[in-house]
Amino acid sequence: MRITVPVPLRWGDMDAFGHVNNATAVQLLEQARVDGFFSSGREVRDVVVARHVIEYLVPIPYTHEPVRIVMWLARVGGSSIEVNYEIRSPDGAPDVLHAKAATVVVFLDPVAGAPRRLSEAERADWAAFVDEPIAFRRG
Amino acid sequence: MRITVPVPLRWGDMDAFGHVNNATAVQLLEQARVDGFFSSGREVRDVVVARHVIEYLVPIPYTHEPVRIVMWLARVGGSSIEVNYEIRSPDGAPDVLHAKAATVVVFLDPVAGAPRRLSEAERADWAAFVDEPIAFRRG
Amino acid sequence: MRITVPVPLRWGDMDAFGHVNNATAVQLLEQARVDGFFSSGREVRDVVVARHVIEYLVPIPYTHEPVRIVMWLARVGGSSIEVNYEIRSPDGAPDVLHAKAATVVVFLDPVAGAPRRLSEAERADWAAFVDEPIAFRRG
Amino acid sequence: MRITVPVPLRWGDMDAFGHVNNATAVQLLEQARVDGFFSSGREVRDVVVARHVIEYLVPIPYTHEPVRIVMWLARVGGSSIEVNYEIRSPDGAPDVLHAKAATVVVFLDPVAGAPRRLSEAERADWAAFVDEPIAFRRG
Repeated sequence: MRITVPVPLRWGDMDAFGHVNNATAVQLLEQARVDGFFSSGREVRDVVVARHVIEYLVPIPYTHEPVRIVMWLARVGGSSIEVNYEIRSPDGAPDVLHAKAATVVVFLDPVAGAPRRLSEAERADWAAFVDEPIAFRRG
Repeated sequence: MRITVPVPLRWGDMDAFGHVNNATAVQLLEQARVDGFFSSGREVRDVVVARHVIEYLVPIPYTHEPVRIVMWLARVGGSSIEVNYEIRSPDGAPDVLHAKAATVVVFLDPVAGAPRRLSEAERADWAAFVDEPIAFRRG
Repeated sequence: MRITVPVPLRWGDMDAFGHVNNATAVQLLEQARVDGFFSSGREVRDVVVARHVIEYLVPIPYTHEPVRIVMWLARVGGSSIEVNYEIRSPDGAPDVLHAKAATVVVFLDPVAGAPRRLSEAERADWAAFVDEPIAFRRG
Repeated sequence: MRITVPVPLRWGDMDAFGHVNNATAVQLLEQARVDGFFSSGREVRDVVVARHVIEYLVPIPYTHEPVRIVMWLARVGGSSIEVNYEIRSPDGAPDVLHAKAATVVVFLDPVAGAPRRLSEAERADWAAFVDEPIAFRRG
């Protein structure tokens, strides 16, 4: 199941080239995870990002309308999930695929600070979001 | 040839977990490129980031001393370079490898806004920085 | 006339103290100006911030719901306006006044890069937003 | 006594106008406080910003050399200090005064989370930094 999370831009997201800065785009992915996955029920606490891959296809201009981040899981592992994303133009605008990305999120034991096993209930919860892994242009 | 670029942190780089935020780490890579490659002679103008891969190994605490970003090229392509990096603890502190990363930077024709071929002189200039490609833990 | 602009927070707005960072709050004011004043018709181009005053009353926690920024003008000058703001808790939450602020925005001649006189039409347009100046706690 | 704190810029500090963004300048002040006052001995913990005033005189371009932030105290109060600053061009460049600013920093009791009285020893320590209050152009 793929979900679409509207993520508002800020004027200050633009860099000196007049587009959303590439590092800021990684912040947008974080906000999509927080709004889409880690709002109610699932908590952002006690997770850590282990890896990002992001491909920039078309520069993101500043727009008053939120960009759409389409988000799903490529994989539910023993103690991690792999989130996949497409950053797309705002709802109502001509559809543009601006970027593709993938993030490995690891779940931590808050006491030990080390990775912990996902429970069966958690795995079943996350499994609903699994869909075909994103295809990057470069391996 | 690998170069080591000291990149100062800011207190505000920390997020609510008390470590340098993962998206901010991507900003640190940008600053290492600007300071290490694109200061004098080579210009940051007319380049665009096409792809990042970043693996986070050990959280980066805030320190008054700059982190060291070790930087080299994995490849010089027809119109792009692949930058590799290690983010390491400050000079003088116990050596910690915090993150590994790779960025594909594409050179643009400023008029056309499209990728342009690197000249032989440019390729020779960049070739001095080529070293063994970084090995990520996950493919 | 006062307008209320909803400004969404980002998880990354929090600093190591777990509240929206004080410098980030200034970014929120910028976004309120862009969304509230400089969207359609009035343009953000060719304006520059000359001065900010901001008083922080109650720390801003991260919330999924946008904070409300109440915004009006204290004054329309010859070539500048003074924007006043209250940063308030999200709609639906108990009403909290988090911060008060004022910004002097100067209008520039894009060619000369120097302040320019507002036209009578512009002054009349902005005059609709004039209301009683905000009272700061400290002079 | 005034101290001068070099604060490195980042390429990403520039906004779409090609200058250091006005909200980012407030981050630079924070970094000057952390580096200049709250490094060894004095701790950044358990302080909170109550108020900023900042006047922007000349836009700050991106430079590889750190800007200089001249910093002193206008006042040591019962439970707060007022920090004054000038943001100046890098060492070695023609001297430009880019901005003037003042910040009220309040000291908190970490348990109660409420303002606490500074001890005599603390007041004596801070008193060494007191100098003539900065003069803003506008009251």
